[in-house]
Amino acid sequence: MRTLVDLNADAGESFGRWRLGDDARLIPLVTSVNIACGWHAGDPATMQRSVELARDGDTAVGAHPGFPDLAGFGRRAMALSPEDAARACLYQFGALQAIAARCGETIRHVKPHGAFYGLTLKDEGVAEAIVEAIATAAPGVRVVLLAGPVSERLAERGFPVVREAFADLDYDDSGHIIIEPEPLPKSPQTCADQAEAVLRGEVRSVTGNPIPVDADTICLHGDRPNAVDIAEAIRERFASAGVRLAPMAEVADARG
Amino acid sequence: MRTLVDLNADAGESFGRWRLGDDARLIPLVTSVNIACGWHAGDPATMQRSVELARDGDTAVGAHPGFPDLAGFGRRAMALSPEDAARACLYQFGALQAIAARCGETIRHVKPHGAFYGLTLKDEGVAEAIVEAIATAAPGVRVVLLAGPVSERLAERGFPVVREAFADLDYDDSGHIIIEPEPLPKSPQTCADQAEAVLRGEVRSVTGNPIPVDADTICLHGDRPNAVDIAEAIRERFASAGVRLAPMAEVADARG
Amino acid sequence: MRTLVDLNADAGESFGRWRLGDDARLIPLVTSVNIACGWHAGDPATMQRSVELARDGDTAVGAHPGFPDLAGFGRRAMALSPEDAARACLYQFGALQAIAARCGETIRHVKPHGAFYGLTLKDEGVAEAIVEAIATAAPGVRVVLLAGPVSERLAERGFPVVREAFADLDYDDSGHIIIEPEPLPKSPQTCADQAEAVLRGEVRSVTGNPIPVDADTICLHGDRPNAVDIAEAIRERFASAGVRLAPMAEVADARG
Amino acid sequence: MRTLVDLNADAGESFGRWRLGDDARLIPLVTSVNIACGWHAGDPATMQRSVELARDGDTAVGAHPGFPDLAGFGRRAMALSPEDAARACLYQFGALQAIAARCGETIRHVKPHGAFYGLTLKDEGVAEAIVEAIATAAPGVRVVLLAGPVSERLAERGFPVVREAFADLDYDDSGHIIIEPEPLPKSPQTCADQAEAVLRGEVRSVTGNPIPVDADTICLHGDRPNAVDIAEAIRERFASAGVRLAPMAEVADARG
Repeated sequence: MRTLVDLNADAGESFGRWRLGDDARLIPLVTSVNIACGWHAGDPATMQRSVELARDGDTAVGAHPGFPDLAGFGRRAMALSPEDAARACLYQFGALQAIAARCGETIRHVKPHGAFYGLTLKDEGVAEAIVEAIATAAPGVRVVLLAGPVSERLAERGFPVVREAFADLDYDDSGHIIIEPEPLPKSPQTCADQAEAVLRGEVRSVTGNPIPVDADTICLHGDRPNAVDIAEAIRERFASAGVRLAPMAEVADARG
Repeated sequence: MRTLVDLNADAGESFGRWRLGDDARLIPLVTSVNIACGWHAGDPATMQRSVELARDGDTAVGAHPGFPDLAGFGRRAMALSPEDAARACLYQFGALQAIAARCGETIRHVKPHGAFYGLTLKDEGVAEAIVEAIATAAPGVRVVLLAGPVSERLAERGFPVVREAFADLDYDDSGHIIIEPEPLPKSPQTCADQAEAVLRGEVRSVTGNPIPVDADTICLHGDRPNAVDIAEAIRERFASAGVRLAPMAEVADARG
Repeated sequence: MRTLVDLNADAGESFGRWRLGDDARLIPLVTSVNIACGWHAGDPATMQRSVELARDGDTAVGAHPGFPDLAGFGRRAMALSPEDAARACLYQFGALQAIAARCGETIRHVKPHGAFYGLTLKDEGVAEAIVEAIATAAPGVRVVLLAGPVSERLAERGFPVVREAFADLDYDDSGHIIIEPEPLPKSPQTCADQAEAVLRGEVRSVTGNPIPVDADTICLHGDRPNAVDIAEAIRERFASAGVRLAPMAEVADARG
Repeated sequence: MRTLVDLNADAGESFGRWRLGDDARLIPLVTSVNIACGWHAGDPATMQRSVELARDGDTAVGAHPGFPDLAGFGRRAMALSPEDAARACLYQFGALQAIAARCGETIRHVKPHGAFYGLTLKDEGVAEAIVEAIATAAPGVRVVLLAGPVSERLAERGFPVVREAFADLDYDDSGHIIIEPEPLPKSPQTCADQAEAVLRGEVRSVTGNPIPVDADTICLHGDRPNAVDIAEAIRERFASAGVRLAPMAEVADARG
């Protein structure tokens, strides 16, 4: 069983007048945070507030670029070409980077959001274009992708990929996560169980089949009403199992 | 009469399916270009194409952040607070910076667009918030403001301001440029006349009053149908007058 | 003292993943509801849900067109021309009308939102263009404007204007309401006091000056955390004072 | 061979500062026009101008709702649910309807644009939700769908469907049109040939296979640089073949 892992959360998903997620409590509980960058959520004021929470909570800051779809919260599939996908990531990453720089922070990683993340699984050309663009434009910045065949291949080719698994989403039999516009509720204990299963290297699909997972970071979603409870349940589980949390760069480096 | 000045153009103002301006011809004719960053014009693909044209044409690259108003092309006044204005600039600057980095380029300056530029004249708190934010987040990057009292005061306080005048817009008696949703046509010779007047330190307002100007850079707009002709007319005029063109950083530094 | 008035609420201001206001409880408490139409809030699914709540709660349905500014929730001033303003109202009114028709409902009135409403006070040409456009395109539909000189003049000219006052916003000495991006909290009793003052024909400005008001409808805002309490407080106050609530068309007709 | 058909064009696809298509010349050449409604193109001012051109050119007006994707011009696939699709059509239809009413015009038909049209072919639930919503909210208004199995089934069930074929797009072997972000150029004669083939009841796919077509209306795209030439070529071809043009409602009614 793994004893070192990153716990990351999608957060910063308020927008203007609308509030979503209890970021002030959640962000300090995770070791990495993926901050929405304006296309699916996260106006500039929200982005800055999120970076400040991460800075003050000693949480590594990442960009969470989404599809240009506020009404759908970036959870509706959209056919971006590899080049469009790469530029969508660069645009949003850069926007957050400049706001972070104002706060004395630096972006450490990029992780596509929702259906954009889903597209990297279905279209390997998209995944490749993204990691290539980030590697060129922002050396040292990591790209988070689902632990599985696509991320393995890109990591083997030397791209700065971090492998991810999910505590609060279901897997289908092909090992893909199931992305829904409105995900079903999950109890903190169910999520902690799945997080622990990730550390043991295998989760169960919705039909009960074993899915092997080799992940450096485990994700939970800040827009769940019980996100803070989920984060605390996972932290407790890990503490009692002697698992140490660290930002994903440290975990990925330890992989060797 | 000044013998060293920067000639800058607002460009990169296509958007998705829509084309605007002959950037391939215009960008190599100027020494600095202000590239739209997605809020009033300029999708990511257009942004990258514009950076590549600047790189290949040896033109210094700047960001041209606008109001979030595609339908109004950023030329309708909008009441952004100083903080919102600062973050709007950072967001758009950063987005372009990441795309430029992919092309091996760096952003040298930031210049608000249209009614956003107009807001910096009417609300000095907005101008100050912008230069402060850029100075903090992007040391070395200049902010272009209208040559006049606001930019003088900010420059005296040590902010990295570049003073600008306009070849193709009219001035009112207060020394402000007149920003219209659909600017009136201008002949290349009229624009060259006004550019030369700028170098002599004085333009005429629409009512014929003298307006003193001390500018390091002169602007023309890429969305005018005859923008290329205007640029060529100004270049010829300057060549025959022995005026040398150089990017705005060099011109501002020469000011001492 | 008036004994017949309409109580209206701005509602339907959720957007996609984001929820705002307790519309299920609020809408049945008012006699007219102004539903956001997508530009400042209110995606199509939210619009339909709001219409259904109004239909089931026997509340008259109105359109609440805003500036095209989701990030600013339509509360940042924006310089629309009279023609642009008229078309912005028509566009959003029509969009809601088609969704309402699907639910067997009809739009009874149009009321600009936030800073758009503010613009009708500062620019009478905008107010006139809006009422003229609605009168032409949608005969029988009323336009809600602040009770005061502008609405008086337009009503005298025969336009279908409904005069409005506010229970939960402050007035300045010119009789204009004060529109803030984030309005200050108000207690239900303070709002009920002001609603009663409206019925007596005079409210107090923030500096204590008397402002005469002759209004057919009284507004409260659904995005206030205590909007339901405010609505209930006003209803109780009116009930004990023998004031009857009715949709604004009935109230305006009774004016004679 | 058919001797009565409608010729329709997608038009009104300018947006704000950006112009696209020569609508002033194109719209009078067709018997029906599909006007963009703001989501993929067509701001309210453009929408009104387009309606006026149709009114003055005696062309039947239709709504052309698209995906909410200005940057992609509505030509990137997007996974809208049937309900979201239905409301997207209602919203945009209604918006245009209100603007048309101001001009004394009425919307006669609705036709999804680009990748939205493509979605009606891939997801019959989407097609059904759209026709059902329009039939409920706007009795008498027709919905234009690709002539083929989906539109046949819906027409047989009594929905107000108009079957369409394309003069300027290629077909694949399944009888679907091929929708590209940037369609290949087509000569006017090639388009006239394909239009004539439609009237004979059969077109060829890109691989040369016969595709049976039974269409009441034939489409061409206003954003093609040679759209006016294509329209004229088709009109000439039809004139010399004795084919009469009429709005799609008349053609569909004649079907019996």
